[in-house]
Amino acid sequence: MSETWSSELTPLSFLQRSGEVFAEHPAVVYGDEVRTYREFAAQVQQRARALRAAGVRPGDRVAYLMPNVPEMLAAHFAVPLAGAVLVAINTRLAPEEVRYILDHSGAGVLVLDAAYAGTVAPVARSLTTVRTIAVAVDPLGPAPAVEVPGAVSFDDLLAGAVREPAEPAWAVDDEWAPISINYTSGTTGRPKGVVYTHRGAYLNSFGEIVHSAHDAGSVYLWTLPMFHCNGWCTTWALAAVGGTHVCLREVRGDRVWELIDRHRVTHLNGAPTVLTTIMRADRAHPLDRPLVVTTAGAPPSPTTILQMEQLGFRIVHVYGLTETYGPYTVNQHQVAWDRLGAEERAALQARQGVGMLQAERVRVVDEDMNDVPADGTTVGEIVMRGNNVMQGYFRDPEGTATAFAGGWFHSGDLGVMHPDGYVELRDRAKDVIISGGENISTIEIEHAVASHPDVLEVAVIGVPDPTWGERPKAFVVVEPGTAPAEEELLEHVRSRIARYKAPREVEFVTALPKTSTGKVQKYELREKEWSGEATRIRG
Amino acid sequence: MSETWSSELTPLSFLQRSGEVFAEHPAVVYGDEVRTYREFAAQVQQRARALRAAGVRPGDRVAYLMPNVPEMLAAHFAVPLAGAVLVAINTRLAPEEVRYILDHSGAGVLVLDAAYAGTVAPVARSLTTVRTIAVAVDPLGPAPAVEVPGAVSFDDLLAGAVREPAEPAWAVDDEWAPISINYTSGTTGRPKGVVYTHRGAYLNSFGEIVHSAHDAGSVYLWTLPMFHCNGWCTTWALAAVGGTHVCLREVRGDRVWELIDRHRVTHLNGAPTVLTTIMRADRAHPLDRPLVVTTAGAPPSPTTILQMEQLGFRIVHVYGLTETYGPYTVNQHQVAWDRLGAEERAALQARQGVGMLQAERVRVVDEDMNDVPADGTTVGEIVMRGNNVMQGYFRDPEGTATAFAGGWFHSGDLGVMHPDGYVELRDRAKDVIISGGENISTIEIEHAVASHPDVLEVAVIGVPDPTWGERPKAFVVVEPGTAPAEEELLEHVRSRIARYKAPREVEFVTALPKTSTGKVQKYELREKEWSGEATRIRG
Repeated sequence: MSETWSSELTPLSFLQRSGEVFAEHPAVVYGDEVRTYREFAAQVQQRARALRAAGVRPGDRVAYLMPNVPEMLAAHFAVPLAGAVLVAINTRLAPEEVRYILDHSGAGVLVLDAAYAGTVAPVARSLTTVRTIAVAVDPLGPAPAVEVPGAVSFDDLLAGAVREPAEPAWAVDDEWAPISINYTSGTTGRPKGVVYTHRGAYLNSFGEIVHSAHDAGSVYLWTLPMFHCNGWCTTWALAAVGGTHVCLREVRGDRVWELIDRHRVTHLNGAPTVLTTIMRADRAHPLDRPLVVTTAGAPPSPTTILQMEQLGFRIVHVYGLTETYGPYTVNQHQVAWDRLGAEERAALQARQGVGMLQAERVRVVDEDMNDVPADGTTVGEIVMRGNNVMQGYFRDPEGTATAFAGGWFHSGDLGVMHPDGYVELRDRAKDVIISGGENISTIEIEHAVASHPDVLEVAVIGVPDPTWGERPKAFVVVEPGTAPAEEELLEHVRSRIARYKAPREVEFVTALPKTSTGKVQKYELREKEWSGEATRIRG
Repeated sequence: MSETWSSELTPLSFLQRSGEVFAEHPAVVYGDEVRTYREFAAQVQQRARALRAAGVRPGDRVAYLMPNVPEMLAAHFAVPLAGAVLVAINTRLAPEEVRYILDHSGAGVLVLDAAYAGTVAPVARSLTTVRTIAVAVDPLGPAPAVEVPGAVSFDDLLAGAVREPAEPAWAVDDEWAPISINYTSGTTGRPKGVVYTHRGAYLNSFGEIVHSAHDAGSVYLWTLPMFHCNGWCTTWALAAVGGTHVCLREVRGDRVWELIDRHRVTHLNGAPTVLTTIMRADRAHPLDRPLVVTTAGAPPSPTTILQMEQLGFRIVHVYGLTETYGPYTVNQHQVAWDRLGAEERAALQARQGVGMLQAERVRVVDEDMNDVPADGTTVGEIVMRGNNVMQGYFRDPEGTATAFAGGWFHSGDLGVMHPDGYVELRDRAKDVIISGGENISTIEIEHAVASHPDVLEVAVIGVPDPTWGERPKAFVVVEPGTAPAEEELLEHVRSRIARYKAPREVEFVTALPKTSTGKVQKYELREKEWSGEATRIRG
């Protein structure tokens, strides 16, 4: 519906505007290359036309497998501009996982960076819906290590734009139409496709702008993967205010500092692991200006917060899930905290906080959906709703209904409500580990471990890790008469799932702790591994 | 519609959130009184309940006639919280004009500050829909000069809240429902009721936040009347970020400076007249921090801009109409301008600019709705559309259809499009004068002048004024054989319409310039009065 007095909300309008208003302002910086907003908008138009020429029709899914390069950023506008839905795939996944996502999403086109030719090549012939695979060779990245069967070059795909001369409008007919599907590890071991809408992406962009304090002077370094919740909508938010995107292929500490210094970076986002990487880099040094670091999940340790603040970083602590477009709550800073001691203040800053401006209130509820007392001790499940909750899981009405039971999205995270209305995470109800910012399903790992012939029983839990927050650890009971080596078992697992998901450690045990009905009591395993820690999770 | 994945957009959510998140943060400062957001939200709840107890039902109109006091601010939340529609009436109107607005809007309740008892008393008995009139006596304001027939005290109205103990929810069933009706002088001489929606108010609030750079540290001085487009939506926007409202009854230069200094004001809005008032005050002095002044319509002169910038003010120049929730375009600052000389830069800053972030593009069109060339010289009409265009004129489908002809809102303002996409005003198509930030219909003045028995013919135009931007001037042809005195004529006019609308000057002429068909050529009158000026309007 579009009337004189209404327009459908879409982040496409952000780039239309900045392409005109910030025409000469740098939009994307990559290596020595700088693209203005006028150039960036024109490139996006060209890519949208090329996708249409490749047969992409409204509502179709278009998948991208790329690091944080300009082409990946362009896809966030070009795919919806073509009327299609972006599926940005985690680059760390194994071939079988990528195949599943491509088939499940029903993507017709896959664009990949040459670095991931090895991921796609083994499954290229068996994809059920992809009819066009295009390989982009980035001058700053590697050449394809192997040939992807049936693939064309991205340049060839792009050349098709001439056959589609009409420029698509920077608008949508329906703000509730999907703009992207982000696959996330669930508890079942199969990734779920989280559907974002144009309206949700638009409103969350405003939230990011307000809470991370973005404006046309923002110089944003892409340390957060764009395939994580579309970079928490910052792909779109930054274009809204005319800020500058600084792209990079890999998050290495010294490279990050080189870019911070060279481009006078003002903002970056990332999991606590990224902060640790930045702090530990040899080039780390005090800043001559504030740099806003928005970080999600459990916060870095009070020591890290303090160290970073001393260097000139300003930490904005947010919390959310793929299902909430990334951040849903923010640890809104209170002026009164400035009068507290460092330790006490850090403890308050470690809370996940309150619903963001564009979000509704966050709740902590018991099993009957009643709010738990706001006493800072009663544990309940964190639930959310409203414009920054996903529309549902793609092609999974049952999973959607379960997640939305009672009219609220169930995060699966357990937490407490403090008397001041700030939520704090305590544990996860779902069998999910978050390691270096990546969700990992313990059940998925268990299936991979159990597929080894010598394994009788297995239980996987997350254990604390100083670098990654958590890492998976497997407790294994072997078949009588066998004695598999730890390394052999891990190699077997790595051949089946992404390497980062494999346990970092295996403990062989004679039996797993179980309930009287035979259910494995992971709780007991966790208690032992986390003794001495205040919570049972880390971000 | 409210689903797990959607919530209706409404500014009510802003105060709900700030009432919790910024509970101890100052929300409203007035005289020596400070109310926190927790207190302010509670007061708003009480007022909403009182309105319900007074019989206010969903969709009803509730009128307020008040200066920029805390009670007026509270009304911006309390009235919609009660499910009703706020009609904030210009305090400078004459009794007959107020009566027309109350009757036309069908308001059931009128709340007025005691200072305006004299305005309401003469018409109180003849109102067709108002059943409750409540007079609020502000401790910092005057006692009622006259009694308003049938009125109760605001305290009595408020006391009714106990009869309605249920707290209304900070939510709406439909984001397209009206939140307010703002009456504006049109060309016809009768005020038109401009309907704002919850969604429009919500989105425009985000626009204000981004373009005026508001955050929780904002200390906003209420120099812009709240009855002007609900204070350009800043009533709502500031509550979104948890900023502090500083209220005041009258905009006097020294009082403004006293408040700027005392409360360390960071932001204020106003017509160029307000800026002039501030600059000319005895207490004017350099600021030790930036203060953002958002000003609308034609900008202050380059000299004023320069002087204000030297004192530490940062000018944000915006343009819009009552029909566009206040600002629709913004003179988005370009980094490249900083390298220009002061004069050249001031000329660029004087342009009305580009559509704001939440707005669509602004267009300049010819009579067939084609865009005029972006050459900076071809004049066309400025048209707008989208989420920050009013839903329509209340109870005026014909006027709405005319204003929305061709699917765009016709501003009635004439302008040019520059090659860089910035719009610049040149003239007004409609017979409207903007004097000290107030719209005045020339036709309305002409009717008042012509009602004098000695007047044969009259034409009113706006002429340049160093303080008010423009002021109305009347050209009068008298009845043969009569010779009315200028002062007598003006006194006659002032008895019929608000004093600020009366011509500041009358020129008696023997004949008015006319076309061959007998239509008065105001253009010729304007050419003479505006010779030497670059444009034919001033803000």
